[in-house]
Amino acid sequence: MQVTIAGSGGWGTALAILLHENGHDVTLWSHFETESKQLAETHQNPYLPGVTLPEGLHYSADPACAQGREMVVFATPSFAVRTTAHAFAPYLAETPLLVSVTKGIEEGTGYRMSELVSQETGRTVVALSGPSHAEEVSRGIPTGVVVACPERELAERVQNAFMCSRFRVYTSPDTAGIELGAALKNVIALCAGVCDGMGYGDNTKALLMTRGLAEVARLGMALGAHRETFAGLAGVGDLIVTCTSMHSRNRRAGILIGQGVPVQEAMKQVGAVVEGYYAAQSAWELAQRKNVDMPITEAAYAVLYEGRDPREALNSLMLRDRTSEAEDAAWAR
Amino acid sequence: MQVTIAGSGGWGTALAILLHENGHDVTLWSHFETESKQLAETHQNPYLPGVTLPEGLHYSADPACAQGREMVVFATPSFAVRTTAHAFAPYLAETPLLVSVTKGIEEGTGYRMSELVSQETGRTVVALSGPSHAEEVSRGIPTGVVVACPERELAERVQNAFMCSRFRVYTSPDTAGIELGAALKNVIALCAGVCDGMGYGDNTKALLMTRGLAEVARLGMALGAHRETFAGLAGVGDLIVTCTSMHSRNRRAGILIGQGVPVQEAMKQVGAVVEGYYAAQSAWELAQRKNVDMPITEAAYAVLYEGRDPREALNSLMLRDRTSEAEDAAWAR
Repeated sequence: MQVTIAGSGGWGTALAILLHENGHDVTLWSHFETESKQLAETHQNPYLPGVTLPEGLHYSADPACAQGREMVVFATPSFAVRTTAHAFAPYLAETPLLVSVTKGIEEGTGYRMSELVSQETGRTVVALSGPSHAEEVSRGIPTGVVVACPERELAERVQNAFMCSRFRVYTSPDTAGIELGAALKNVIALCAGVCDGMGYGDNTKALLMTRGLAEVARLGMALGAHRETFAGLAGVGDLIVTCTSMHSRNRRAGILIGQGVPVQEAMKQVGAVVEGYYAAQSAWELAQRKNVDMPITEAAYAVLYEGRDPREALNSLMLRDRTSEAEDAAWAR
Repeated sequence: MQVTIAGSGGWGTALAILLHENGHDVTLWSHFETESKQLAETHQNPYLPGVTLPEGLHYSADPACAQGREMVVFATPSFAVRTTAHAFAPYLAETPLLVSVTKGIEEGTGYRMSELVSQETGRTVVALSGPSHAEEVSRGIPTGVVVACPERELAERVQNAFMCSRFRVYTSPDTAGIELGAALKNVIALCAGVCDGMGYGDNTKALLMTRGLAEVARLGMALGAHRETFAGLAGVGDLIVTCTSMHSRNRRAGILIGQGVPVQEAMKQVGAVVEGYYAAQSAWELAQRKNVDMPITEAAYAVLYEGRDPREALNSLMLRDRTSEAEDAAWAR
């Protein structure tokens, strides 16, 4: 298969290595010409220290490199997905498989990443997500992900392209669930970090993560996703990886806030985009719009944007109305 | 409320402290007279180092101490639940609330703990479970659990007795799901430990945990449990706590096996009961009996009981048939 990966960050590069190993002919596209030349010359990507890019990968900074390819994978940061898809659109007429692997929600509109690519290209897009640190995938560590698309045949073709003994791929019809799980779990990861930062225990963190996932699933269902998806790799799987890893910027920002560092100062100290901070606002807005009860997200929003004290927020979460675990629980009597 | 806790290990004692703080009149029953006397004299429990038992707790080694109580909580190790319930049965006529807080499945029969208490007492039993290290509960760390019973009123009365600002209690009608989640998650925790021991990454562990939970839910549903329960506190919540904590004996045993230590030697080194080892056999037998596909449990069984190499087992898991994430996925086309 001839493949272009649009985006040469850590994730795009890790997937380029994987697809190359799977026998595909892979071109890695960079936004900047200089970056593309550097990759071609050094065979190193600063985002993946210690990993040498294999011989036989091609490099380009021209969207025309997508012309005539069987699969194009969009792997830029979320803020660049729309403009990248727009730039690639003229070259995709003969490309049956478009894939989005970026996690996030567009600020202001609430659109998911595959929706942005669809809007810019007029095409059906497959979403790929799951618990997948790029560094681990680039080093060949066994990993599992989901590819989602309402059209089964497209999902299965993408599954076949990526799957191998170190990269297991499941299919799903639930694009909305896969992408919402990936984006919204960052809010919960940030909250789990706050919990760690306040010095609470494993019990508290597991409670926050479980009930956080329950409310993310509730919002997801209001937006057309299936409940089971949130119990899968892009939901609980991705949440576990994010909440337990010190690599997670969301978690690190949360820890600082839990330790009493003011929110803006915590963002500065982390030094890179903390997606959970923005996702908290998107989630809060979507919850308002869809009238979904999301107590943990509301508490996170109040702490992040309205200066509420996290200890006091947690306390009031613990003392909410007594309730049943599943809102649609069926009782015998 | 007048309460007896039957079992003075770490968990029983932590719950005794909690219920005492909630204003109930609590008697802590020990199997051994000497243990009971020691608790009464020292106000210390060796299972909860550094915690002082509050004034006002009562201690007994006589099952008759349950006579006339409003609630009796069974909190012994799993192997002692049946005999303890049998010994208490004659004294429970005026006790409306029976609660089981022990995790496990009876060897050979496959019965859950609340079923054992029901069989010995002829009464409906409420099960309590969730991500709850006893040490953390005894130190007042915020914790959340589920109480399950098909009879809503009983579940809500138990919820009211336990709930406070540091112990949040949800209700559920799904006793089977709550108890199976708690017991079977130990198998997955052991596998997650093996994964760590082999030096695999966070991606691999999250994959194992997520797909492990999916197959536990599949078995649970075949045994009458609800799927959502496994996405709740007694399912994914408890799994998170167990798989990320070094306190977990299941995880420690798994790490040793992953590092190449022979199974029986690993059990010896851990030095205490590794519940996941026995649960793997129970789960495997139940899966056979109910004809449920459980590839991870089967691999665990082969590694633990048939000497299969864990690396080879993981490899074959990665290369199983290509599949969809939810077996009942609804595709547009």
